[in-house]
Amino acid sequence: MVRKLSEEERETFLSRYPEWKMVEGRDAVSRTFKFSDFNEAWGFMSRVALAAEKADHHPEWFNVYNKVEVTLTTHDADGLSERDVALAGNIEEAAK
Amino acid sequence: MVRKLSEEERETFLSRYPEWKMVEGRDAVSRTFKFSDFNEAWGFMSRVALAAEKADHHPEWFNVYNKVEVTLTTHDADGLSERDVALAGNIEEAAK
Repeated sequence: MVRKLSEEERETFLSRYPEWKMVEGRDAVSRTFKFSDFNEAWGFMSRVALAAEKADHHPEWFNVYNKVEVTLTTHDADGLSERDVALAGNIEEAAK
Repeated sequence: MVRKLSEEERETFLSRYPEWKMVEGRDAVSRTFKFSDFNEAWGFMSRVALAAEKADHHPEWFNVYNKVEVTLTTHDADGLSERDVALAGNIEEAAK
């Protein structure tokens, strides 16, 4: 079992990444990214996929054309954990 | 504007690809694919991405770990068109 984030860690995360919002009714965060086209969106997703596979921690995500909605949570923690913080950092890098 | 499928074309599609179902409230079809893990799911998505970009017709899709939910519709036709039939064929190939 992975440890859930404490309230303090959660607040630190949300203030560090203000574009990420808590998902209603779930202990999860999400952010929507918009790119210029599918090519750009797919490039982003490919970078995230490699980081996710490396960390063995994967996002929930929805893509349509240039839009990617990413949701992060940790099944083994039944909520947000350090793994989501780390993956969010990789995702922010990948979106640059 | 791309032409919508006729009723007959729609029935032909649905009988040819029985795993694809009409989406409630939308002129769209969807199918959920399950793979052994994220690696397999991502391989499938990568093949579909290349086919989609080549045809300049893209899916709506949601992925979490080994699961990929694909929805097809044609924005320019405000519903199902031949482009979706073609993409569904590529997707079935990619899932093999």
